[in-house]
Amino acid sequence: MTEYQSNMQHSVPASMSLFTGANTITPHLNDAQTKASRKLKTSLEQAIKDSGLRDGMTISFHHAFRGGDKVINMVMDVIANMGFKNLTLAPSSLTSVHSPLVAHIENGVVGKLYTSGIRGELGEAISKGVLKEPVHIHSHGGRVHLVKTGEIDIDVAFIGVPCCDEYGNANGTNGKSRCGSLGYAKVDAQHAKHVVMLTESLAAYPNHPASITQDYVDAVVKVDEVGDPSKIGGGETRLTSNPRELLIAKRAADVIINSGYFKQDFNIQTGSGGASLAVTRFLGDEMVRQGISAEFGLGGITSTMVAMHEQGLIKNLLDVQCFDAGAADSLARNPNHLEISANEYANPSSKGAVVDRLDVVILSALEIDTQFNVNVITGSDGVIRGASGGHCDTAAGANLAIIVAPLVRGRIPTVVNKVLNVVTPGESIDVLVTDHGVAVNPNRPEVRERLLQAGIEVVDVEALCERAKSLTGVPQAIEFEDQVVGYVRYRDGSVIDVIKKVKE
Amino acid sequence: MTEYQSNMQHSVPASMSLFTGANTITPHLNDAQTKASRKLKTSLEQAIKDSGLRDGMTISFHHAFRGGDKVINMVMDVIANMGFKNLTLAPSSLTSVHSPLVAHIENGVVGKLYTSGIRGELGEAISKGVLKEPVHIHSHGGRVHLVKTGEIDIDVAFIGVPCCDEYGNANGTNGKSRCGSLGYAKVDAQHAKHVVMLTESLAAYPNHPASITQDYVDAVVKVDEVGDPSKIGGGETRLTSNPRELLIAKRAADVIINSGYFKQDFNIQTGSGGASLAVTRFLGDEMVRQGISAEFGLGGITSTMVAMHEQGLIKNLLDVQCFDAGAADSLARNPNHLEISANEYANPSSKGAVVDRLDVVILSALEIDTQFNVNVITGSDGVIRGASGGHCDTAAGANLAIIVAPLVRGRIPTVVNKVLNVVTPGESIDVLVTDHGVAVNPNRPEVRERLLQAGIEVVDVEALCERAKSLTGVPQAIEFEDQVVGYVRYRDGSVIDVIKKVKE
Repeated sequence: MTEYQSNMQHSVPASMSLFTGANTITPHLNDAQTKASRKLKTSLEQAIKDSGLRDGMTISFHHAFRGGDKVINMVMDVIANMGFKNLTLAPSSLTSVHSPLVAHIENGVVGKLYTSGIRGELGEAISKGVLKEPVHIHSHGGRVHLVKTGEIDIDVAFIGVPCCDEYGNANGTNGKSRCGSLGYAKVDAQHAKHVVMLTESLAAYPNHPASITQDYVDAVVKVDEVGDPSKIGGGETRLTSNPRELLIAKRAADVIINSGYFKQDFNIQTGSGGASLAVTRFLGDEMVRQGISAEFGLGGITSTMVAMHEQGLIKNLLDVQCFDAGAADSLARNPNHLEISANEYANPSSKGAVVDRLDVVILSALEIDTQFNVNVITGSDGVIRGASGGHCDTAAGANLAIIVAPLVRGRIPTVVNKVLNVVTPGESIDVLVTDHGVAVNPNRPEVRERLLQAGIEVVDVEALCERAKSLTGVPQAIEFEDQVVGYVRYRDGSVIDVIKKVKE
Repeated sequence: MTEYQSNMQHSVPASMSLFTGANTITPHLNDAQTKASRKLKTSLEQAIKDSGLRDGMTISFHHAFRGGDKVINMVMDVIANMGFKNLTLAPSSLTSVHSPLVAHIENGVVGKLYTSGIRGELGEAISKGVLKEPVHIHSHGGRVHLVKTGEIDIDVAFIGVPCCDEYGNANGTNGKSRCGSLGYAKVDAQHAKHVVMLTESLAAYPNHPASITQDYVDAVVKVDEVGDPSKIGGGETRLTSNPRELLIAKRAADVIINSGYFKQDFNIQTGSGGASLAVTRFLGDEMVRQGISAEFGLGGITSTMVAMHEQGLIKNLLDVQCFDAGAADSLARNPNHLEISANEYANPSSKGAVVDRLDVVILSALEIDTQFNVNVITGSDGVIRGASGGHCDTAAGANLAIIVAPLVRGRIPTVVNKVLNVVTPGESIDVLVTDHGVAVNPNRPEVRERLLQAGIEVVDVEALCERAKSLTGVPQAIEFEDQVVGYVRYRDGSVIDVIKKVKE
């Protein structure tokens, strides 16, 4: 014991430790080389090895590249080759490009899955029971809630970005493959025990603006490609020329304009589908005519929203995810186009989600029933092929949640007596706009009254359901087995429905 | 039990709850009024009441306004009037304007104190033993470490800002009393259970850039004034005309230029004192002469640094705190002047502190001893009148930590055999520059060699100590009592020294 220690010992409570050296908890500062460059890894395999990943742990990814994502398959192949087993996979969402995950599930690399969406072969395989434990389908806001409450306890987050410096400062707006907003990845960076940035390019230090800052990053590895921005939108960002979609869009715009919420500084979120984009366009025309502007446009941001922003019709864009390359470029260019995290966007237990301030949201539906419950996760055959997304988050927050949908799709009714699976509860849905009429939820009589006064015909949702049946006939009921293949988690973490295995 | 519940019950494990309603955890969404404006409070008293503050809890403040701060005294007066007792006060730092805290300690409102610095009457009172428990003096990085490890467990953070919207999006660069960077407040917003924004102005939603975002804010209250920006610098931002300071500054610049670290893309942090600013100026001249530029300037940012940035001599400014109004204006104006949090700046347990990348830091000292240990907390009379600040954080991180100090101040030696209190351990200090010569820590022989080769005279630190004694005589030793009045916490949370009560 040194003189210093013996002098100090009797003056300091045992709850505090005594000084033992300048770099006791910062050993990397003892070496000039490790000081500055300790994070840069020579390969993805090295980064995974150094992450401390072990069998049974939870790993995460973001879905900013959507259908253009190249990170999940790349990382999972390396992880599988390294021999890891029984991992919990917790990407913010998945698309049809992630079919290779089926093999990783079959081989035991992946044992459990949390995601907002599943499509293609993976959805079919999970619907057939390939996963040992049912998949957890969450909303975008609900995922943050599950992360913050610890159910999704991310051990290693793999975050693909177009550019990052050697210390981890990253954004999605510079570099080659620009995804724009890193709204989902920000949450993972903040909460994961270990964060690996996969970057296409190493920028000069300090890379900025830093959507994710260096103090949340453990490792950086350069890779050839993280994503293809041209596939973010998946072709859904073109304006529709389908007459039925245009009819629905025009009706939805009329509903909004006469709902009582269309006034100076209203707020709006629209989706990326053809009808949603057309609604936005029709609204824009009316905003010009009436001389009003919106306070903000929210959500997945499209080039259509950007155009309205640059015309001065939407003063701010609050962007958790860019739905096309044009939106990503705008985020870099427009000072009032703001990147927000998924916690800010939609987490019900955050101290203030932007969805809480929404006036109007336009949403789609695979099915909607006479209680206004909405299914956006399973197809008419009961197979998983959709995404929860921000559907129940925005519906809960918005003053006016509008479903736009054709009454029937081919021989399949959209409006039904009871949806196969509930993702968004009917109590959160205010208006249904179809090509065969507009229905208003009975819990919103004042909205119904305003529409009637504006000369908009309002029909009962039951009438729409009957009309659909008259067009398609009553489809044969799908037979399910007792086995549960998926839990539909509401945004507060509760189970709002279970998805059962389809009888083959 | 509804049909839904009975159907679901046997399909869902007990670990998950069943859906009970769209707004079970978001009751504020049931009312259009509480949806958008639930955070705005009518008075500071109301905000405190609604915060859930109770006796014995921990409250925090930031010190971006330094000597111009008006928030701490205002809030503590209201809290005292409301009758709270035995609170732990955890501001990031305090200055001489906070003397009213003495009364709150005497009256039992404040029972425990964490801070980086203390000056004036409060320092004198604490040195005399007014606090029940010794004060904890931490560094800026060390404070974040204590917050993250839970020792400083902030119940309510009171954050003064010039502008904020009704939902809590705040910055320090717009509005009337602009403090600039909110680097310290960002940490409190992220970790406090309850966050109250005190704002001079309510900006339109969404206020941006948002240094602190709405998802970290519980309450917003408008107040008349939060601070006086003209008092941030405390008059220390003028360039010195003191010949001794200029001599020291010129020597320090010569040391840096010949240290081996002065090259293209070097990094630097300087303080706000007269000598530090003069060093920066001399370095700037040499950078122009040699045609080199710095990668970043770090720390408390001054107008001198801003001028060099705008000349292109310093490519980026990384700003945890603006040291004058000119720096605050630059943060709003210059895209490469970047706001960083205290976690990014200096936390030893963060995943990457900027101090780790520092080449050169220029620091001051109240005392430095022949082991290069530095005291920046107690005066020559043993009374607390200083601040730990980023001293030990930057010294640990930098490749070259330079102390600039006059050999004696009046009849008081600066270089001594043993400092009264250690804040920064000698192992982290590389060079001491005084008006009577330059000493190099024996653990940096290569630096000593470079300086000698450049023709700089290097003396032993013991010789400087003897020289000081010959000028001042040996001061009479201060007599201390056994009572400990302060713990000096090193950046890793350990106790590097204790401050004892001075015998009266």
